[in-house]
Amino acid sequence: SLTILYLYHRIYMDYNATTPLEPEVIQAITKALHEAWGNPSSSYTAGVKAKAAIAQARENVARLVGGKPEDIIFTSGGTEANNLVFHSALEAYRESCRTAEQGGDSHHHRDNSRTSSAWPRPHLIISNVEHDSVRLTAEHLLKDAQADVTLVAVSKVTGRVEVEDVLTAVRPNTCLISIMMANNETGVMMPIRELCQRIRSVSGQRHHRILLHTDAAQAIGKVGVDARDLGVDYLTIVGHKFYAPRIGALYVNGPGSTTPLHPMMFGGGQERNFRPGYGWRPIPNAELVISNLPEYESHMLDTRKYLEERLQAVFGKERIHFNSHFPDSESLPNTCNVSILGPRLQGRKVLSSCRRLLASVGAACHTHRGDRPSHILLSCGIPEEVAANALRLSVGRGTSRADVDVVVEDLRNAVETLESLN
Amino acid sequence: SLTILYLYHRIYMDYNATTPLEPEVIQAITKALHEAWGNPSSSYTAGVKAKAAIAQARENVARLVGGKPEDIIFTSGGTEANNLVFHSALEAYRESCRTAEQGGDSHHHRDNSRTSSAWPRPHLIISNVEHDSVRLTAEHLLKDAQADVTLVAVSKVTGRVEVEDVLTAVRPNTCLISIMMANNETGVMMPIRELCQRIRSVSGQRHHRILLHTDAAQAIGKVGVDARDLGVDYLTIVGHKFYAPRIGALYVNGPGSTTPLHPMMFGGGQERNFRPGYGWRPIPNAELVISNLPEYESHMLDTRKYLEERLQAVFGKERIHFNSHFPDSESLPNTCNVSILGPRLQGRKVLSSCRRLLASVGAACHTHRGDRPSHILLSCGIPEEVAANALRLSVGRGTSRADVDVVVEDLRNAVETLESLN
Repeated sequence: SLTILYLYHRIYMDYNATTPLEPEVIQAITKALHEAWGNPSSSYTAGVKAKAAIAQARENVARLVGGKPEDIIFTSGGTEANNLVFHSALEAYRESCRTAEQGGDSHHHRDNSRTSSAWPRPHLIISNVEHDSVRLTAEHLLKDAQADVTLVAVSKVTGRVEVEDVLTAVRPNTCLISIMMANNETGVMMPIRELCQRIRSVSGQRHHRILLHTDAAQAIGKVGVDARDLGVDYLTIVGHKFYAPRIGALYVNGPGSTTPLHPMMFGGGQERNFRPGYGWRPIPNAELVISNLPEYESHMLDTRKYLEERLQAVFGKERIHFNSHFPDSESLPNTCNVSILGPRLQGRKVLSSCRRLLASVGAACHTHRGDRPSHILLSCGIPEEVAANALRLSVGRGTSRADVDVVVEDLRNAVETLESLN
Repeated sequence: SLTILYLYHRIYMDYNATTPLEPEVIQAITKALHEAWGNPSSSYTAGVKAKAAIAQARENVARLVGGKPEDIIFTSGGTEANNLVFHSALEAYRESCRTAEQGGDSHHHRDNSRTSSAWPRPHLIISNVEHDSVRLTAEHLLKDAQADVTLVAVSKVTGRVEVEDVLTAVRPNTCLISIMMANNETGVMMPIRELCQRIRSVSGQRHHRILLHTDAAQAIGKVGVDARDLGVDYLTIVGHKFYAPRIGALYVNGPGSTTPLHPMMFGGGQERNFRPGYGWRPIPNAELVISNLPEYESHMLDTRKYLEERLQAVFGKERIHFNSHFPDSESLPNTCNVSILGPRLQGRKVLSSCRRLLASVGAACHTHRGDRPSHILLSCGIPEEVAANALRLSVGRGTSRADVDVVVEDLRNAVETLESLN
């Protein structure tokens, strides 16, 4: 009842940061904590139930992203899933170098050096608007001299990574391209499918493959995601972005057979040794998403458009700048990144003057950035004084038009208060 | 009510594999799922509550193992915690080699090789009865030519790693010694405190430290564990061994300052960047353990001793061999590893003929080992035909003398049935 009271007073529009759990999910977790607490490898009921719950979750997550159950590797979260991709791609590159050098005999003659000096360092490509778990992983590998890294800038016109720009960045030693499926601040969708098709055509003649990864954390649950149709090798899944618990999974197209996967950890054999450890296993509501996605999607789109209309109506078109509107780019149905223009209306100030709205100015990880405008928005060509005022309003499945009315009125009052201060 | 029915019919004596959750823990988790679902870095209630819950858990876990809150790094489980120790020790060794070589300038002149050829490979010491997450991590590093590894055999007399044997194994390039605090199959306690004291006295004159790690998964919640009194640098904590959820933590004595800690993952800054990612955070019942440990310990000891008496009384002293009894070794209060001697009484057969007892023949991770006797017991000097009949009966806080009576009667019937088959 505390929760209901709280939701009644405040309106949550930060669904891109995290989502509350569905009541069905909490029930499923509580039931599992009572009944399925055994080790999944144990033969007694509490273990058998744990094993069955994991198998069911794996099947649902596979269906959610268009893969087979054996393509799903559960992890502790999106950060681990993304790190696992980079680790695997580098190991695969080193292995293919050794194989090419030693005529297929990769198990002898290893020494202290992790790559042979005869081969160049592996090269990684990411965009300049990736989540920290991709960006900082790539930066670490660069700093540690384990890899060269190219950051491909998103277009300041489309807000998108352009396929041609990625192709231009490809080098003979490129082993991984990691581009997010949808940006968490602008909602802009990246052209992953086209990118995969184009890269496949240049990847053929190499002694190593160019592996393709997309972090689909923001896309899943909002738009249809089909890993095989996209053509990616790896796809990151993050439970707490679609009303499931804080767990993650990595889709791998045939892990260890079609697509290389090298564990970062070693232990008791769970997840077929690709990710050992009895971590917290998900009981996500993948099934709910699978059956209701078109409905969720159109509801969120309708709500967001209504929000955009109301903002323009209340503040005037000339005072509203949508940082999530780019010509020719597709975007998430739920993300409205908006600046209310004016000298005293920096995003954080506006939010802290709101009495009903709960939202953020950008990715939640970046609270340490203080008052600097989002580097994501600046990268997308949003002018500094506009980006400084940005509010990321991301709606959810349950957000109603009435919620939007309350939020817009709340913003009107906040802006009035801020502008009346001298 | 399903749970109660189930526990009524069967008696669980596999508490060393995993523990059911305390009702208070399930309540705390459910409450957190409802109310503390926000990102801990968010400023609204659901995030503030998450942050507070994590801070409280960190404080409790610190008190549980005698550390400071800032010494506790939450991980997805024991496997990750153990892997993090090995990763950190190797990185620290490489860093100290570079520093020694370059006169303190460790940030320039890096190349592809992870260690300089001027320095020997790092050397690791573990025991031959470690959990897979330690043993396989060390084996991987050996196979990948990243480290040399010495397995110190436990004494076949005491079932324990002897301090002198570890000291003999130390080399100039030894950078990590990882010995479990208590063995999961025999319950034997290793002499960690003495080991730390002795190693400290040889570690002084080196250009790198010998780091000391103990996996305390089996000890915590059963006996008092005080990391500072033990003198270890790292200590592994595993929630699901003490009625808490499937999460883990690593105690590090001053992470990043007194003791090196190098992240395996990179991302959004959680756990002060030592372990980024919004993983599932624990709500363990550390407080319950802290306040009730002496009572739990004496209850489990009493129950186990009663179990041992009843087994000897029912089967006769000459037919019972306790694989967990070693002269001069301390052991966990709750672990009774017993073989009922006889040609048809292999552990698995006996357990599958039981109608009430739920137990295992050894570590749950090893179901793939089939019918081979436990290598742990063989390492401890238990003869093969005795080890083949081993049952690991590990009691819990709630196990009663009445439960013991039921189990012993159940075993009597099972043995009678097996021996009557021709």
